[in-house]
This record gives sequence, structure tokens and C-alpha cells, in this order.
Amino acid sequence: MKQLRIGMIGYKFMGKAHSNAYRSLPMFFPKALKPEMAVLCGRNAAALQEAAARLGWSDTVTDWRELVGREDIDLIDINAPSDAHKEIALAAAKAGKHIFCEKPLALTLADSREMLEAAEEAGVMHMVGFNYRFSPAVRLAKRLVESGRLGQIYHFRAWFLQDWILDPEFPLVWRLQKEIAGSGSHGDLGAHLIDLAHFLVGDIHEVIGMSETFIKERPLAAEMTGLSAKANADAPKGPVTVDDATLFLARFANGAIGSFEATRFAAGHRSTNSFEINGSLGSVKFDFERMNELEVYLTSDEEDVQGFRRVLATDPAHDYAEAWWPPGHTIGFEHTFIHEFLELSSAAAEGRQPVPNFHDGVKCQAVLEAVERSVEERRWVQLSEMQ
Amino acid sequence: MKQLRIGMIGYKFMGKAHSNAYRSLPMFFPKALKPEMAVLCGRNAAALQEAAARLGWSDTVTDWRELVGREDIDLIDINAPSDAHKEIALAAAKAGKHIFCEKPLALTLADSREMLEAAEEAGVMHMVGFNYRFSPAVRLAKRLVESGRLGQIYHFRAWFLQDWILDPEFPLVWRLQKEIAGSGSHGDLGAHLIDLAHFLVGDIHEVIGMSETFIKERPLAAEMTGLSAKANADAPKGPVTVDDATLFLARFANGAIGSFEATRFAAGHRSTNSFEINGSLGSVKFDFERMNELEVYLTSDEEDVQGFRRVLATDPAHDYAEAWWPPGHTIGFEHTFIHEFLELSSAAAEGRQPVPNFHDGVKCQAVLEAVERSVEERRWVQLSEMQ
Amino acid sequence: MKQLRIGMIGYKFMGKAHSNAYRSLPMFFPKALKPEMAVLCGRNAAALQEAAARLGWSDTVTDWRELVGREDIDLIDINAPSDAHKEIALAAAKAGKHIFCEKPLALTLADSREMLEAAEEAGVMHMVGFNYRFSPAVRLAKRLVESGRLGQIYHFRAWFLQDWILDPEFPLVWRLQKEIAGSGSHGDLGAHLIDLAHFLVGDIHEVIGMSETFIKERPLAAEMTGLSAKANADAPKGPVTVDDATLFLARFANGAIGSFEATRFAAGHRSTNSFEINGSLGSVKFDFERMNELEVYLTSDEEDVQGFRRVLATDPAHDYAEAWWPPGHTIGFEHTFIHEFLELSSAAAEGRQPVPNFHDGVKCQAVLEAVERSVEERRWVQLSEMQ
Amino acid sequence: MKQLRIGMIGYKFMGKAHSNAYRSLPMFFPKALKPEMAVLCGRNAAALQEAAARLGWSDTVTDWRELVGREDIDLIDINAPSDAHKEIALAAAKAGKHIFCEKPLALTLADSREMLEAAEEAGVMHMVGFNYRFSPAVRLAKRLVESGRLGQIYHFRAWFLQDWILDPEFPLVWRLQKEIAGSGSHGDLGAHLIDLAHFLVGDIHEVIGMSETFIKERPLAAEMTGLSAKANADAPKGPVTVDDATLFLARFANGAIGSFEATRFAAGHRSTNSFEINGSLGSVKFDFERMNELEVYLTSDEEDVQGFRRVLATDPAHDYAEAWWPPGHTIGFEHTFIHEFLELSSAAAEGRQPVPNFHDGVKCQAVLEAVERSVEERRWVQLSEMQ
Repeated sequence: MKQLRIGMIGYKFMGKAHSNAYRSLPMFFPKALKPEMAVLCGRNAAALQEAAARLGWSDTVTDWRELVGREDIDLIDINAPSDAHKEIALAAAKAGKHIFCEKPLALTLADSREMLEAAEEAGVMHMVGFNYRFSPAVRLAKRLVESGRLGQIYHFRAWFLQDWILDPEFPLVWRLQKEIAGSGSHGDLGAHLIDLAHFLVGDIHEVIGMSETFIKERPLAAEMTGLSAKANADAPKGPVTVDDATLFLARFANGAIGSFEATRFAAGHRSTNSFEINGSLGSVKFDFERMNELEVYLTSDEEDVQGFRRVLATDPAHDYAEAWWPPGHTIGFEHTFIHEFLELSSAAAEGRQPVPNFHDGVKCQAVLEAVERSVEERRWVQLSEMQ
Repeated sequence: MKQLRIGMIGYKFMGKAHSNAYRSLPMFFPKALKPEMAVLCGRNAAALQEAAARLGWSDTVTDWRELVGREDIDLIDINAPSDAHKEIALAAAKAGKHIFCEKPLALTLADSREMLEAAEEAGVMHMVGFNYRFSPAVRLAKRLVESGRLGQIYHFRAWFLQDWILDPEFPLVWRLQKEIAGSGSHGDLGAHLIDLAHFLVGDIHEVIGMSETFIKERPLAAEMTGLSAKANADAPKGPVTVDDATLFLARFANGAIGSFEATRFAAGHRSTNSFEINGSLGSVKFDFERMNELEVYLTSDEEDVQGFRRVLATDPAHDYAEAWWPPGHTIGFEHTFIHEFLELSSAAAEGRQPVPNFHDGVKCQAVLEAVERSVEERRWVQLSEMQ
Repeated sequence: MKQLRIGMIGYKFMGKAHSNAYRSLPMFFPKALKPEMAVLCGRNAAALQEAAARLGWSDTVTDWRELVGREDIDLIDINAPSDAHKEIALAAAKAGKHIFCEKPLALTLADSREMLEAAEEAGVMHMVGFNYRFSPAVRLAKRLVESGRLGQIYHFRAWFLQDWILDPEFPLVWRLQKEIAGSGSHGDLGAHLIDLAHFLVGDIHEVIGMSETFIKERPLAAEMTGLSAKANADAPKGPVTVDDATLFLARFANGAIGSFEATRFAAGHRSTNSFEINGSLGSVKFDFERMNELEVYLTSDEEDVQGFRRVLATDPAHDYAEAWWPPGHTIGFEHTFIHEFLELSSAAAEGRQPVPNFHDGVKCQAVLEAVERSVEERRWVQLSEMQ
Repeated sequence: MKQLRIGMIGYKFMGKAHSNAYRSLPMFFPKALKPEMAVLCGRNAAALQEAAARLGWSDTVTDWRELVGREDIDLIDINAPSDAHKEIALAAAKAGKHIFCEKPLALTLADSREMLEAAEEAGVMHMVGFNYRFSPAVRLAKRLVESGRLGQIYHFRAWFLQDWILDPEFPLVWRLQKEIAGSGSHGDLGAHLIDLAHFLVGDIHEVIGMSETFIKERPLAAEMTGLSAKANADAPKGPVTVDDATLFLARFANGAIGSFEATRFAAGHRSTNSFEINGSLGSVKFDFERMNELEVYLTSDEEDVQGFRRVLATDPAHDYAEAWWPPGHTIGFEHTFIHEFLELSSAAAEGRQPVPNFHDGVKCQAVLEAVERSVEERRWVQLSEMQ
């Protein structure tokens, strides 16, 4: 493949992050196949024009079906609300387009499997947007696990804590409506934790969870941008139909145990996306609010200087670091997307599937749904049941 | 009551901590009723003599039955291994002695209830050794919850992580044998988390847990002191019959959700006893390795300076602090016992039951056992079942 | 002004940071006057071509005199080595071009004054690259000082610690040669601290310092990129003619006291650029390795919850934050340049001088040189002497 | 020596810390020569009685001359206000008593030398109370320096920050009066930093400093206990005659550079006693508010896991740790005194001088006074001048 002409659907929070990543890739990774920011797609023509100009897209269309049908597009980037993922992805696959889809892949496991099958059948590239895999510090954790430097993994604990809807007057945005978002904190935040667990520890064997919706009704939203929104005074209220928090326990196929917590009601946590891995030879801890850092403990350290090290993953020894700034000069949230698209671009150049792809998206969806089933049926659910 | 003459059974890790606390109480809390370190009890006469001299006890006996029967003793302090708690406590109650018992109160819920009933019937004081309640920073957390400054409590998460038996060659000490210890990380570490949950959040409605024993066999121990121990080379192996790690989820009676993790296999964690509480108006975080500190977040802070504060609980405004050193001059692990015995001593002087007492011990035991049942039966267990 | 056509000299570490910033400005601050990346200038034609293509510049020239003379350029961005700043700036001013110059403005105070005078005489805009002012967390510190929320400022302490030349075999790059770099850690790192002191506290009245060069000779460099470099085996050695570390004490015009430490020999510090300000009503602490955070202490907090708060400056209440990502989603080193050019662009649109400008560069240079004089003459030097 | 009968002068903050340490030593270090808490001395008979009973002293006298003359006393422990140190120490030496003296040894260098000479002439043991040397984490730092694991020491920075007199209405206690206290933050806090510098890095060659008194007048004190005090409303004001903050730079005999900051005006710092040491092979950082921890960086770590480790100095590998609690169970401020008296007791048993002794006290005083001279004369002062 010599070029990668992108048609992107959506231009809000994720659309902005993607645009910035496409635009930045050639400057920092000049050897990568360069994505061409060809066509931006959205329903509101005026807003779309403004966004395309601002974000740097060459053309616009207001109908995603038209976009999918265009000859001059190689890849469809789907970051529309979750309920639209499936239909677009199926059409894109049918049209022979490569697909990048934001997580969660779909509203249901069945849908996500249909998307995977369609993409595989069409022989196109498919990728899913688990961007946190692409933090240099997370890559370092992966390297420590894979190289055996942490030994046998005993325990994985992960928590994604936010507080953006703590205020009961925060309005009923689409992310709080099951029919659009699929689920709440579980699919939004927990999905990232599950993918990191798959990436860092391996397959999950069984799960049991619990969910709670603390604020059952909220005022209808007047407007929403990114994660912020406002309601008019005296706005009528509607029911919140997703979970505010979901916790679950897991047993991995390799015998490790796991705990997962996702909540939007943890006061003081703007976006604490954290995990810890305990192995027989060491441990690592990560917190996305300090994403340049990984805390590393190795039992092989001399006995009087054992302790968690704060490793700043900005040295030449760390993934991606040399493309950026000198050691100690940090990067931010948006860079995970640039690295993600480096993988997409590299896969395109090499004619292989990028990772993580729809297989990973399906696997994540299976766990999400197994947890939901375990909540409903109040019992342990094995992943082997999720057929 | 004018005096409090103590007879103590056990002189290892806990016995040393208790002795130090009895001895220190009058110096730092001179208004408190002074405990008299009267009689120390243990089976090995030589070791007992040495310990009594070192720890400051006036007399010794090698038979706890004799101790319980002595006229010149007001209170029996039980810090023998867990399997001995019940028999001693029942005898002490029968003899009309007040009782301080280390946690866990007993090996089973039934036993702990029997102990409570015996103590209540005898009309004696009873207290259980949940010493972490007596950290000034934990008291501050309690104050913030009780005063409503954290609002409605949504989420309690707690984790007690150690790594003292990470080495597979660490021997099979009594704490790893079910018939003596009752359980492993669950009863040893998890019990403290459960008590803190009761103290800070309230009653638990239902639980579901999972347990794992990562190392199934260990060499038999040659000697043990405190938490350290050694095995002889080529020592035969025996089965580990307790859990290395136990995790559980909980729903509180007040609607809050909870997660609990206790493990002895978290490399790098010497003794991380931590919790976080998220409420509608704020959050607090605690880690016993930095026991003088409480992190506090309040939503009422001005919008541009919101963040977790690191409060050093050594100011005059904090519990116990004025008895100690100037602000910023920290205290340590052993001080929790001094404060614990201040409560014991105050209760004695005021003719009331100390807190936490056997009611709290039973409540903790009920949760421990409910979790164990949930592990065995792989289902949610309600505390109301634990009759 | 309707456009801002940039001609930039230099394309290594700073050139890359500037290019990225020019390119990113319109996407994240669409209302700002858009800089046009017109002409890139460097001496090595082949490397220049590659850089221009990679960094996104439309045209190239190999002679800066030609660049300065071009009609289609509005602003000259100087990030060549420090010894070239003056000559270029004088020519640019003479040609009526606006000027952005990296710090340090020049090798001497006299030179920097000449540059300021030339720019002022020519009536052009001038700006100096003190990018750390543009961290949101630093802006928050400024706001707290200016609004009086910290009260009277008593003490400013600042330290910029690196370890990039700790290895004695690290080669003799231009940054270690006085005739090119002017000074070592002092002008490179200390300059940033001095500017932050000016920005946050105010004018300095007098200083006294000490300097040290720990490694006096190093192998000659074979190649250098950014801050990294290599020497050939058996490379001959040359003398290090700049300071490895410079410390100084200061008294501010407003009575505050100050301490400053700049070193390239602090093992473990990749780029710790930190300051603390203590005032009569509160304190703030900053560390650029955690640049999204400001620690804030306010004496007005309730007496039992006083402590440094870790404020993540990513909330809507913080400068620049709304242009970026939701709360808790961090930014990095490169973003300081984008904000810096936002100021440049805003000043151009509004027809005013940007801040910090050559006045600030001269002021910084005066302190740098006063410290150097104090080192040589082993005495306190007042800034009023630096005429 | 078979016993160590103590006569102690003073029973406030330090007297309480000493009493607790004497009392605790035999329990935790049973092999050490046991100090006998024989006689407590103070001027106010009633308060003295109460203190002796509370702190555990057998006898009392109100005249220190009487104490010094008693046959049944082996060692005089001086923790009276600083202006009384010299006279008592000289008398004690003359009477052939061993001497423990709190820091600062005396109000002037000349006085401290006289004390040293008297003690040496009398052939008695002498020790000075630099208790921070006895933190396990500080001992670990010492071990890392001495064993060469940090390589050549380049840089020592230290800061002791408090805020206990930040409030301008805090009264004029004796610690703020030059004739009693000798100096302010410099002698009180800076003295500890200087001693740590001597202990960890070595002799100081030259210094230059600056001092400031931010609040020049304060209300006269009505009462004072430890570090806290109150003034009556409408109390008359008196002049503060000591420094509120003193900073200085230093060059060590071994070529290392140093910076020192002592202040009582750092809002939010209750008692931040910190240092950092940078060597050619590694660095360490310490903060007494987290006294159980030492941060350690070693350049020999593998290149992808380099970072400061948080070492909890509670492992068996650390000094004193086995006498206390299991790993991860922390100790506090008061324990530094117990370890200090362990040294005193060990020296007594072994018939040698304890360390630190009056030589160290004199050395510290010389630096304190050299800094004061450098402040007055506004110039670098070499320690060789301090004859």
C-alpha cells in the first residue's frame, strides 16, 4: 500500500484526537506511511465545515453512506456514537474499505462479532481504538511482563475512576442512555481496563460483577461538547439507563486473579486510569494522570535498596521516546493516538492486520457482556458461555 | 474502676506491641487510668522469663488457666494464636475478667458469637484489637464521614497488600495453617479492611468473593519470630491450607458499593493497608505505610484549586496529636496500640464498653465467613444468612 | 495584521518544537491569527530539505541573510545556537521583521541590550522563548500570586536538575563550549528559573553565586542531535569551558528571598524543573516532570484538613485547558510552545508587544551576568550595577 | 561501665522525647546498657514533680548545681534552653560527669569549644543531640555514600522548612530571642542540616549566606509549651531578634557544592527536613515527614527501568529495623532519640566516645557562625578563618 486516504465519521472529542494524530504522524514518524486527511463526515453541514477547516480535512460529506462509497478513500475511521458503529462498519467492509473503529466496537457482543466477520470476509484491515496500549509506560509494562522480568503473574488490579457526572444536575447526555451508549462506566471506562488486562495478562476465564446507578434521573441535556454538557434551568428529567459504576472480579486463564473498578462517581478523580500487576519477580503500577511514569519493583534488587522505582518512560530505551523530546520532557494524552495510528500505518505498509483489531474488540465485548450477565443473574459467568 | 491490672497471654509480635502500649500510655496520656503490667503468660518458661523482664511485666505464669483464676488480675489480654482465643475468653468471662482479644476474635463465627455472649452474660468489658481504627488519619476520615463533609458515601475500596511469603521457600508457619489461623490473608489482612469498612461506612448487606492459594506446598518451619521465619535446608514440605489472596465485592446497607483485596503476594508491598472512600461531596485516601497522612478531596474547594490534599494528621486539630510531638513530627505503627489502650482505659474509667468490642469482632467474623461461603458456593451471600 | 508569515532559522530540537507548535496552533486555537510556515533556513542543504519536508515548511534557504531580506516574511524565528542570535536579530530588525528569539537572548548582557534597542527602534514585535511560563500549572501559580491568594511572598526556591552529561564520556558538544553557548547549566537551565522568578515574584535586587565544572575535559563530539550525542572511540579530548552547575542566592526588590540551583549532574533527574513559592497565605510547588500538576497550600483551609493539594490544571477553570482534552487528560512539553505562539499570534492580531519579550530577555541576561560577576568577584552583586 | 544513671535538666519538648527514649531502650534493645532514669531537674518545683511522675523519673532537684554534684549520677542530660548549656556542661565536666547536650551545643563557637575542651580534659563521654542521624533511612543514605554506591559526591542540597510562626500574631517565645536561643531558624533548623552534611558528605570549606526576619515585632508570650504558645490579647510587642529564614551556599572540602535553606515561614510545611545527595553513580532523597522512606537512584540500573526507588527502611537489611516491627510497619520521630541513646549506651558499655559528640557540635557551630559572619560581612567565609 502506498497511501492511506482517510474518511472519518465524527469530529467531536475523538474526532479531534484522531485528526491531531493523523496530522502529527508524518512530522514525528516520517518513515511511516502518511495518512491523507481526505474526507470528514458529519450530519450538521455547518458544524462539519467549521470542523473540517479547523481540523485539516480536505473534503466533507454529510452522509456516511456516500463516504463509504467513495473511490478515493482507503480507510473509514468511525468515531460516531457507539450505536452507529455496526451499520457503518458493515457497509465499509462491504465496500472493501479498511476500518478503524473507536471502542466499544458495538453495543452487543453479537454485533461486534458480525463486524469482525464482515471485515475478515472482506479481507480488509480492522483496528479498534484501545489507545491506552500506546502509552510508552504501558509498553514498558508489557515488555516487563513478556520478557519474564515480573515472573509469573499472580494479580492484576485495575481502576478507572472519574467524577465528571458526580453533580446530580449534570444532564442526561447520550453517554448516559443505554440505547446509544450500550453501557455507562462499564463500556466506557471498564472496556479500557479489560483491554489492558488482555494485553498485559491474557485471557479471562470467568467473571462476577456488580453495578450501580447512584443518580437515577437527570435533567435533559441542552448541549454537549466532548465530555462537558449543560442543561437548561427547569429542564425536564429523564431516566439514566446505564451504570454509574461497575465492579467485577475475574480469574484469568493463566491462574492470575483480577479486580476491576470503573466509576464516574469518584470525587477528585478527573480521569484516574490505573492498574497494578503483581508477579512472582516484581510488580508494576500505572496511573494515566501521570502517564509518562511507570512504577516498577523488582525482587532482584539488592536487599537494602528494594522499592518501587518511578521510571519516566521518556528515555531512548523506551518505545516511541526518540521520536519526541529529550529525556524528562513529557508527552500527553493525545500522543497515545499518534502511536496508535503509527501501528495502523505500519500495518498498512506491511500488509498485515494492526493490533489491537476487531478480534480484541470482540474479546473485550465478550468480557463486558459476561460481566453484565453476571450482574443480572448474580452468578459467576465463564467466558466459554459467551457464544 | 480505680486500676486495671493486666494479665497478658502471648509475648511475640502482638505481645511486644501491647506491652509497649501499656507502658507508654501513662507517659503520654497521664489522665488515663493506668494499666498495671501484672502477669505475663506463656508456655515456654525460659522464654517467658526473658520476655517478662524485657517487656516490663511483674510476674509470670505458664498456664493460662492459672492466670485467669488469679484474684489480682482485672483484664485478660489474649494475643495467643487464633485457635486459642475462644477457650481462654470463655474462661476469662466465667472468672469475671475483662477481656481484650486480638483479631480475629475466633476461628468461626459461631465461636465468636459464643465469646460475645459469654462476655455479655458475665457483664465484663470486652474489646477486640482492630488497631488501625486508632490512626489519627483514620480518625480524621471517620470525622469527615460522620460530619457529612464527604456527603453520601458511594464507594469504598480497600486493599491490604503484603509480600512476606512471596518466596516459595518461605516456610509453613502457623499463619499458613487453617486449623490454627482460621484463614490466611482473608482473616489476617482482610479482617482489618472489613472492620475499617464497618467503622467508616457501615453495615455490609451482601458479598461475593474469590480466593487463591498460589503456592500450595511449603517447607516446614524450623523457627518463627513475629512475621519472619526460616526453614532448614531439605525440610520436608507440607500443604498450605489457607488462602494467599482473597478478593471480594460488597454492597453496603446504605447503598454504597465496595471492593476488598487482601494478598500476601503483592511484590514490593511490605504492608500496604489502604482504603479510599468516595462520597457525593468528597473523597479520602489512606495508606498505612504513610499512616500520618490522609489525602482529602472536597468538592467545595474553589474551582481552580481542586485536588487531593495531603493532610498530615499531626496538628492540634487531629485526634491524639497533642499528646505527642509538634506538627510534622510523625508517629508510627506502635502508636495505634497506645491509642487503642487509651480507649480501653477510658472505658474502664467511665464504666462503659470500649469500642471496638466483641460486637464488632462478631460482625467482622460474619463478613469473613460470608465471603468464605460465597467462595465455596460461588454465589452472592447476604449477611442476613449468617445466623 | 492579517497574516504572520514565518521564516525560521534552526531545525533541531527547538526547530522541531516550534514547527509543531506553529502547525498545531490553528487546530486548537482556531480564533488565533494563523502562522504560515513559509521558509526554513539552515546551512546544510540536504538536511534542510529533509527537515522542511518533515516539519511542514513551504520553502527553504541556506543563507539567513537571504531569509531576512525576503519580502514574503513577517517574522524571523531564531533558534540557531546562541552565538548567532545577535547578528541575526539585528539584521531582522533592520529589515523590519518581527522577531522571536530562543533563550538565552544573547551571549552577553550588552548584546542582548543591543538587540532590544534595535527591535524597539525598528518598531517590530519581539519575543523571547521562555516557554515554561506557558504551562497551565505555572499560569495557575501566577494567578494565585497576582490575585493575592498567596499573600505576601516570602521565599522563592527553584531548581532545574538534569543528568544528561553525568557520564564523563559524554562528548564535548556545543552546549559545553563557552564561545558558542555563553554558559552551561546557568544559561541553559538557570535562565528558565530566573525568568520564572521574574514572572512570578518580580525584580531581583542582588545575587551571589557559585559555579563548578566537575568534568573538566571531554572527548570531542562526532555527532549531536537534540541533547544526545556520541563521540568516537579514542576521540581526542577538549576542555569544557562552561559550568556544570551554578547555584545562587537572591534578594528580590519586594523583600522576598530566593535560592536557585541549576545542574546537569543530578543523577536520576532527567529534567526536573521545579520551584516553590512560600507566601504569607499559602504556598505552591511545581515540577515540570509532572507539568500538569500544581501543589497548592492555602492557610485559609479548615484547620483539620490543611495540606498541599495536588491540582491537575486540566479543568475548564485553568488556562488553555478547554482548547485541549477533558479534565484529567494531560498535555506535555510541546504544548508550552503552542501556548507561547498563541501569545505571539494574539499580540500580532492586537498590534501589541507579546510577553515575554526582549525586555524580559535582557532582564534575565542581567541576572545571569550578575551571577557570573558574583562568582568571579566572590561578592554580592546588585542588579543596579549591571549597566 | 555497668550502669548509666541519668540526671536530666529540662522536661518540655526535648525532655519528654528523652524520657521516652530512656524508658524504651531496654525493651527494644535489651542487650544495651540500661539507662537509669534517676533525677529530673527543673526550676518550677510543682511542674517538676508532675513531670517526673509522668515521665518516670525517680527523684527531682530544682537546682542544677545540686544535680551536677550528686554522687549517684553518671551522666548529665542537658536539654534546657540553649543559653544555659555552657555553664551546666562546664560544671558537669568538672564534676566528672558524662554529658549529653542538646543542639545547638552553645550560643557561640567559642563557648562550644570551651565545652569540648572541658569535657576532653575531664575525660568524660560527651554527646550532642543531632537525632536525625539516627533515622534508619538516613543511615541507609550514609551506607550508600560510604560504600561508594553513590560514587563521587557532587552536590548536597538540604532544606528544613517549617511554618509554625507564619502567623504574625504568634508570640515572642524564647526561641525568637537571640540572647537565649542564639539564633532562629539557622541554629534551630539549619544546625540539623549542617550536621547531616558533615555526616553524609564531609567537611565544609567555605560558605556564604543570607538571612531575613520577615516579622520584626511580635506580642510577648503568655505561655509556651513545646513549640506552641499563646499571647494575651493586647499583649505588648517586642522585637524579634533572630532570623526567620537563613539560606547559604557552601563548598565542601571534597569539591562538592551545597545549598542550605532553613525557614519558619514556608506555609504548608509543618516540618519538612529534607536533603538530596547527587553523586556520580546515584542519588538519594530524604524527607523527614516521610522518615521511613529513602528515595534511591542508581545509574547501574538497567536502562529501561531507571528511576528513583522509594525504599521503606523497615526491612531486616536496614539499621535498627529488626528491633522494631515487621517490614512495612513504620516508626516515628521519637524513635530517632531511642537510637541516639542506643549509641550513647553502647559507647558507655564499650568505653568509647559516642558519635556525634562535642567535636561534631563544635564543627556545626563553626559553620553556623561562619554563615553568620558571611551574612554580616557580605562575603564568602572560609571555615579556616573560624579560629
